[in-house]
Amino acid sequence: MLTGRMMDFPLAITHLLERVNTFFPNVEVVSRRADRSLARITYKDVYTRGVRLAAALAKLGVGPGDRVATLLWNHAPHLESYLAVPAMGAVLHTLNLRLAPSEIGYIANHAKDRVLLVDKTLLPLYAQFKGDVPSFEHVIVVNGDDPVGEKASAAGGDPSGEGWLDYESILESAGAPLPSSLFPALDENTAAMLCYTSGTTGKPKGVLYSHRSIVLHALVACMRDNLGIGEDDVVLPVVPMFHASAWGLPYEAAMTGAKLVFPGPHLDPESLLDLIERERVTLAGGVPTIWLGILDRLDREKGRWDISSLRRMIVGGAAAPPAMIDGFAKRHGIEVLHAWGMTEMNPLGTIARVKAGLRDRTDEARLAYRCTQGYSVAFVEQRHVSDEGAVLPWDATSMGELEVRGPWVAASYFGDEGGDRFTQDGWFKTGDVVKICSEGYVRICDRSKDVIKSGGEWISSVALESALMSHPAVLEAAVFAAYHPKWSERPVAAVVFREGMRATDDELGAHLAATFPKYWLPDAYVELAQIPRTSTGKFLKTKLREDFASVLEKR
Amino acid sequence: MLTGRMMDFPLAITHLLERVNTFFPNVEVVSRRADRSLARITYKDVYTRGVRLAAALAKLGVGPGDRVATLLWNHAPHLESYLAVPAMGAVLHTLNLRLAPSEIGYIANHAKDRVLLVDKTLLPLYAQFKGDVPSFEHVIVVNGDDPVGEKASAAGGDPSGEGWLDYESILESAGAPLPSSLFPALDENTAAMLCYTSGTTGKPKGVLYSHRSIVLHALVACMRDNLGIGEDDVVLPVVPMFHASAWGLPYEAAMTGAKLVFPGPHLDPESLLDLIERERVTLAGGVPTIWLGILDRLDREKGRWDISSLRRMIVGGAAAPPAMIDGFAKRHGIEVLHAWGMTEMNPLGTIARVKAGLRDRTDEARLAYRCTQGYSVAFVEQRHVSDEGAVLPWDATSMGELEVRGPWVAASYFGDEGGDRFTQDGWFKTGDVVKICSEGYVRICDRSKDVIKSGGEWISSVALESALMSHPAVLEAAVFAAYHPKWSERPVAAVVFREGMRATDDELGAHLAATFPKYWLPDAYVELAQIPRTSTGKFLKTKLREDFASVLEKR
Repeated sequence: MLTGRMMDFPLAITHLLERVNTFFPNVEVVSRRADRSLARITYKDVYTRGVRLAAALAKLGVGPGDRVATLLWNHAPHLESYLAVPAMGAVLHTLNLRLAPSEIGYIANHAKDRVLLVDKTLLPLYAQFKGDVPSFEHVIVVNGDDPVGEKASAAGGDPSGEGWLDYESILESAGAPLPSSLFPALDENTAAMLCYTSGTTGKPKGVLYSHRSIVLHALVACMRDNLGIGEDDVVLPVVPMFHASAWGLPYEAAMTGAKLVFPGPHLDPESLLDLIERERVTLAGGVPTIWLGILDRLDREKGRWDISSLRRMIVGGAAAPPAMIDGFAKRHGIEVLHAWGMTEMNPLGTIARVKAGLRDRTDEARLAYRCTQGYSVAFVEQRHVSDEGAVLPWDATSMGELEVRGPWVAASYFGDEGGDRFTQDGWFKTGDVVKICSEGYVRICDRSKDVIKSGGEWISSVALESALMSHPAVLEAAVFAAYHPKWSERPVAAVVFREGMRATDDELGAHLAATFPKYWLPDAYVELAQIPRTSTGKFLKTKLREDFASVLEKR
Repeated sequence: MLTGRMMDFPLAITHLLERVNTFFPNVEVVSRRADRSLARITYKDVYTRGVRLAAALAKLGVGPGDRVATLLWNHAPHLESYLAVPAMGAVLHTLNLRLAPSEIGYIANHAKDRVLLVDKTLLPLYAQFKGDVPSFEHVIVVNGDDPVGEKASAAGGDPSGEGWLDYESILESAGAPLPSSLFPALDENTAAMLCYTSGTTGKPKGVLYSHRSIVLHALVACMRDNLGIGEDDVVLPVVPMFHASAWGLPYEAAMTGAKLVFPGPHLDPESLLDLIERERVTLAGGVPTIWLGILDRLDREKGRWDISSLRRMIVGGAAAPPAMIDGFAKRHGIEVLHAWGMTEMNPLGTIARVKAGLRDRTDEARLAYRCTQGYSVAFVEQRHVSDEGAVLPWDATSMGELEVRGPWVAASYFGDEGGDRFTQDGWFKTGDVVKICSEGYVRICDRSKDVIKSGGEWISSVALESALMSHPAVLEAAVFAAYHPKWSERPVAAVVFREGMRATDDELGAHLAATFPKYWLPDAYVELAQIPRTSTGKFLKTKLREDFASVLEKR
């Protein structure tokens, strides 16, 4: 092999930390405190404090590869750990504070976290799982007295006397250390960040991002066609920093020098709208429920907020309802960009931008493209595959499991569980059942474990659920597979009716028959008071399958 | 070291070739033929033809690491070789057709090029150096009969009977080969492209780009703050594809799926303006002389061309005159973005965008920032260093040699000449003498070999030249160092007067004294009929130094 003669310069997060200090020292990083006031620091402060954090952690014995966990909302100290912990060669492990305490404990223990950074307001949560994590050696309390820059100890930090450290105090006692002594030259494949999937089945699994994967992901996200973040942006990551690195938004802002605005724990529509107006936010990212709430407030209180600064909202993490995307555009002139990704891919995979060649289509057709999951960003490759392993055509009809590969796609899980998700020929099985059109736009039909395989045909549980929920009597519906002696699996619908309303099985069947072929219609309907859910609010279909495994046999 | 668990997916140009075919098959690639007509193909064609080109080259014996040279204008077949030659593991070597034939011969021989792709119209040039290159085994004639898709042979190609092959014929006879058999899985550090510096001193030196360096460079160029190329752009690379990969524009277009428009050999203002209007070009890149010519035409023939599609012009390769940047903005509403780079860095180093925090400055101050070389793009690091090797402060005053490092900066030259340009601690010495302000904007004062070192003080030859050329009697001026027994070096000015005009040495000295300290003023003025120049039109100061080495001693 003839090798190019270019520098062996690593794609390391260290460069981002140095870059904000070099070129963007005066750009602000704003954080909403628990008491709703705003803390303002600059990138120069982030750098200085990040260096001190690294010195303090080194003093506590944190070395290369050690896991430093965070149980934190989105705010400047979390950003400091995002940049400084990987730069010192350690691994930042973001714990999901929305999980059940026992799950958090399982995950922290599985990762063998040695240090925990925890918001003072989350200490009660920590108390519920700390006993499960014998590997914790040090607990550092952040935002001890709410205002950034004040110390928990000054407000009587560590009231329990259990050996907590105060974040501001350890930063202060670190003095003015030399960055060169703390940030080693890193191989770009060094582990930088650990995120666990919240998995609706099985135990959570850890995804171990490298410096390289995070940097490449951020570079591609900053391309104009993707998130297009630039130095003149004001970026509001509503998506939590414990969800797949908040889609990389903190890294993308640092890479470009964009101002960051963090909402802290205040994620209600009114707080967010106030923040967008006050800080002149230009780009915000969050899950559909957040934007649904905001759209509702904007519709109900027209003119209350001036959010004209907002040029783009990124929605991901779940399928966005078309009415929402359309509503923002038509009623408020705001572009909602629909993206799809996974914890296993850092997370960005596809973006639903309308290609230039498709912009002369009807409004309806363009909206349809914008509501798909989109097509792959540069350096992500996509295909979908049948049950038998055949690669399927992009004909908008063939349904198969989406597989992806690329430099920021996981090759294995931390601890090597879940090897069946990685194919022999180097693809990751996403678990999403999709169709792909000739233009390459991906449309998710179902999760592969939820799709119903009836006599060799695939039936989308998601499509049936959406249709059932459009019936006026139905509040919620979850469709799942039940064992059938002849067809192997047949669909069964669990239905929650609206208060005081009802529909017969025949009425529901007739409602569905208007849209679907006969063999798609559920064989049975079971009425429930509520659908069982996971700790993150998703339908827990494994429970339904267990509870109603033999519902069709008994008939 | 704890390694991240992400896929080992290479940053290879192969992905770009596959990507245009997968997601952007119908996007056009337009080329102006030698006869001025326009050839239109699509990215799907580029892919199909690229695969055939690889098959044909493999049949001719081209293997991994072999150099395939091009002596071509900017057009679709050149793009095909840009993508397909590196994808097959070979190295594309772009020969600069503006050099003297003996220089081209030296370079092709030094590179040991095995195959040459040459435009039919450039065969007379080829004839002047082919004798110098015994390594050439095959010569393939492109655009044999001008229209893309017709064959040179049909028009009596190879009239000399010397064994030339016709590009279209070898593509046709390649049939429909399997891409998987032609494009191996590549290590991203594999050499992809070879470009020689045109160096004003010494022999030209080869820079061997890797797949990784080209891909990372293109990713960063596509960031919104940099060139910001997107899928809805129509990109016109006026900068030749034999100059540092045309700033990566062809790769950036392929990465995003942007339409490409190539000017072929027609680089006069009228042809370019016609092309911009007709193809609705949105982004164009070229050297200052090109844009000066265009600005002049636009000013003189207001309203003749509708170039409202143009959102951005990139100027680089030489310092852009402020009046030009200002003129485009004020008189035609077009943003000219000034960038700086080098063949040794793939080439993008810095971009002169005005940071958001500086936009409230006066028009004059903002123009001053836009006329600097700018500040480093992500993953390029910059510093300037004194003669004694001290890293200098960013105080807008200290003058020193600019040094850069990053993943697309050369670590050595092909053949390992010029080792003194690479520092022990991993930086590349650019040869540019600069000042850097506190915001990080770089301003080039001189080439290091041209700066005049007088009694320990540095004097900028460029600054003196600019000032001399603002004197009404002066057409051109070049300032260079002459030996001085006491001060080691002192400035001497070579002056070409305007026809029928003259100025005495005292008058010129008085003109300069208004701007510069006394010790900067030239010790002598020599009148010339013309300034000696290199084959690329730069002042040949080595010649002036030789001719006037002892001019100060004789006095």
